[in-house]
Amino acid sequence: MKSLVIPMLCFPLFLSLLTSCRMEVEEKYYTEADSIQIRKIYDESLEQGEAYENLRILCKEIGTRLSGSEGAEKAVDWAYELMQEYGFDTVYKQEVMVPHWVRGDKEFAYYDDGIGKQEVPISALGGSIATPEDGITAGIIEVQNFEELSKMPDAAVKGKIVFFNRPMDAKLLNTFHAYGGCVNQRGQGAVEAAKKGAIGAIVRSMNLRLDDYPHTGTMRYEEGVPQIPAAAISTNGAEDLSKALKKFPELKFHLQLSCKTLEDALSYNVIGEIRGSEFPEEYLLVGGHLDSWDMGEGAHDDGAGVVQSMEVLRIFKALDIKPKRSIRTVLFMNEENGAKGAYQYADIAKREDEFHLAAIESDRGGFAPRGFSIQGSAEKVAYMQRWSDLLSPYYLDKIEEGYGGVDISPLKDQGTLLIGYYPDPQRYFIHHHADTDVFEAVDERELELGAASIASLFYLIDTYGLPTEDVQ
Amino acid sequence: MKSLVIPMLCFPLFLSLLTSCRMEVEEKYYTEADSIQIRKIYDESLEQGEAYENLRILCKEIGTRLSGSEGAEKAVDWAYELMQEYGFDTVYKQEVMVPHWVRGDKEFAYYDDGIGKQEVPISALGGSIATPEDGITAGIIEVQNFEELSKMPDAAVKGKIVFFNRPMDAKLLNTFHAYGGCVNQRGQGAVEAAKKGAIGAIVRSMNLRLDDYPHTGTMRYEEGVPQIPAAAISTNGAEDLSKALKKFPELKFHLQLSCKTLEDALSYNVIGEIRGSEFPEEYLLVGGHLDSWDMGEGAHDDGAGVVQSMEVLRIFKALDIKPKRSIRTVLFMNEENGAKGAYQYADIAKREDEFHLAAIESDRGGFAPRGFSIQGSAEKVAYMQRWSDLLSPYYLDKIEEGYGGVDISPLKDQGTLLIGYYPDPQRYFIHHHADTDVFEAVDERELELGAASIASLFYLIDTYGLPTEDVQ
Repeated sequence: MKSLVIPMLCFPLFLSLLTSCRMEVEEKYYTEADSIQIRKIYDESLEQGEAYENLRILCKEIGTRLSGSEGAEKAVDWAYELMQEYGFDTVYKQEVMVPHWVRGDKEFAYYDDGIGKQEVPISALGGSIATPEDGITAGIIEVQNFEELSKMPDAAVKGKIVFFNRPMDAKLLNTFHAYGGCVNQRGQGAVEAAKKGAIGAIVRSMNLRLDDYPHTGTMRYEEGVPQIPAAAISTNGAEDLSKALKKFPELKFHLQLSCKTLEDALSYNVIGEIRGSEFPEEYLLVGGHLDSWDMGEGAHDDGAGVVQSMEVLRIFKALDIKPKRSIRTVLFMNEENGAKGAYQYADIAKREDEFHLAAIESDRGGFAPRGFSIQGSAEKVAYMQRWSDLLSPYYLDKIEEGYGGVDISPLKDQGTLLIGYYPDPQRYFIHHHADTDVFEAVDERELELGAASIASLFYLIDTYGLPTEDVQ
Repeated sequence: MKSLVIPMLCFPLFLSLLTSCRMEVEEKYYTEADSIQIRKIYDESLEQGEAYENLRILCKEIGTRLSGSEGAEKAVDWAYELMQEYGFDTVYKQEVMVPHWVRGDKEFAYYDDGIGKQEVPISALGGSIATPEDGITAGIIEVQNFEELSKMPDAAVKGKIVFFNRPMDAKLLNTFHAYGGCVNQRGQGAVEAAKKGAIGAIVRSMNLRLDDYPHTGTMRYEEGVPQIPAAAISTNGAEDLSKALKKFPELKFHLQLSCKTLEDALSYNVIGEIRGSEFPEEYLLVGGHLDSWDMGEGAHDDGAGVVQSMEVLRIFKALDIKPKRSIRTVLFMNEENGAKGAYQYADIAKREDEFHLAAIESDRGGFAPRGFSIQGSAEKVAYMQRWSDLLSPYYLDKIEEGYGGVDISPLKDQGTLLIGYYPDPQRYFIHHHADTDVFEAVDERELELGAASIASLFYLIDTYGLPTEDVQ
């Protein structure tokens, strides 16, 4: 009878195993029709796509689009008109006041080791104050991080320029993690330096490649801490400066910036919408940011995201896909230096009681697709991964937990699932916030594949919804 | 007692379920030590890598390397010396006779629609005969494929130039499949055209992008079929010519080529080896091809594969990994127009009784890793996929059944598992066999990641071997 006792004891286990194994084998989370629809989405994007030509116009005919600039306003008008031409159900602009920082005359820096002057490529950080008209000239001390700086005696820092030279970690496959590991030098460096009595800050560009292009980006001041000028130096410049400092620790660094912050300016988020047929009060958002830094052409950052976001709705219309939910393209203003557009959008959505089920942001460049970065519970990620068999043939292999994006972040409060489109990240930081971020750096096919990737996920979420409670 | 009867009946099923579920959960096909070793391989490649500087030398100091050319011989000497410097256990050259085709003076073509002459960018196909010195001028007929051509009356083709204009299919995510769908026009087009009495062949370049660069590549003649000159036309040129033909079906096309085939030349495969500690008679091969077309610099095709193949063994040495099996870098000569080096290598391996367990070829460009293409049974693919958890963090998500590569193909006969390194394929055909295939088109980081990817798989295969019988 022993053989009977064992199965009796094991029966509950048996049932649970049977259930779990069955789930894996038999349950399908999509249909053949979905597979066909996704194929059509890719065909439309690859064969009739308009993203690349739109990017050309945005980069070459409009150019850079820093908040408050003429370029930003032109981009607003262009996107508004284009989405009207596309015949989306509703197209409108949403007012938002944005910071207005201007670079002024070209910035300039050199170091003097007592033998000769060596000019180095620099770029004022966004938000920095100017130097006096003739610049500042001072000794310079190199640090790798804030801890090293804080341990220095104030007397060693006072009156000097602090040079933050921690490089991005080349070992990280996800280069955004390498960026995250350095970017506090840029954002907070001037404050930390000023706390110790420094009169300026120079920050190594956030770039994995050694080259001669400085990469700008936003920086902050803090109430009660003196404001000092801050600039990025190219990676080659940082290497040279570091070597020179080892030989001539007393060398003098000269920095000249003429940037300034003007009055806040009126600008706009630009929004296009196709109304849902079954759940019009539930929104799916796809977005990028219209503003860019004032260097290069803002092609990968974030011209790509802008044109892909418009392309997603254009594809839905072109294929006559009638979404159940309302789908929206949102082109945010001011991601680069304030995210005022993002907060404005979320505030108004809350006020108007517009529930966003999911928001997908494209702000990691126009490179070949890798997948999506899901800022949600493991259960939500697992729910998405049920579609992997549909998406993997399109090279969307990484459906993983991760960050969504700056512009969609404020929607987190209303329970929106935040999703970042994740293209291949290896080359992004060559171009990010630098003069190299031009139209020619974006590949047509890779850009189109990105638009189709987002449209496909949009289609699946619209078709199947998302679990409001955790799924097992 | 009913509750006892059911479990009794189901007991065998229960056991089988238990077993299958356990296998998924508990079996591990690697250890923590492997994970650490692979991390070290990537660190070495990303932080101390020499592949990129080697590629610069190969592209900029040596240049193009068509079989029989001075560049090819320089590349042989350079690779031989470099692997000796690296201190591999054995480095040697393997004689092989290769075809020697030369382009001669720059080729030239235009069409004349009766209103004016329109010059178009062309490039002689490798192996083509020349036109008479003054060129040929003839009517031209456009076809999409051989079937269309074969259905035409001979009289419509006789004395004309056939224009093969089937484009690569943009809808295919694996662009190598799109290439495979067109490349018979290039290889076989002249023969099919000549069979119908044509006097020349013009082939649309194998390029997904519309641009002005003709892409060369090899073509064949057939015994008993007249040899006619053949050239590639740029994709923009093909589009323009096609439009012009619709307006002026009688337009004349002028083609002038001065290429010729010389006597076969002596050249070499270059081989470096680290001897195995446990199974020295079992070989693992990593290879690319030293020769290139005579356009651009042969950077992606296949400078990348060459420097990655040497880098794999360099990494093993640098990290003091003592392989159990003998590992070999094989730099093949003459992949582009004959694969004589590949056959020579396999013949000698057979003669010397050198059993190759696996061979990995890198000949799809130096782009960011996607995975490996396994030319083997489903069981072998499944065996490799057991390492997916180790490889996926390094963006090697596609361990899939597929083609290995031209140079390793002749090893198939001895039972070698053929593996193609599979980088992202979206941009490869922009550069393939064209003037755009230069050093600057290769990204340092992507190249390094590729070398580390291959070295990691090499390490795993060396550590665990491969099933000689199918695994379940």
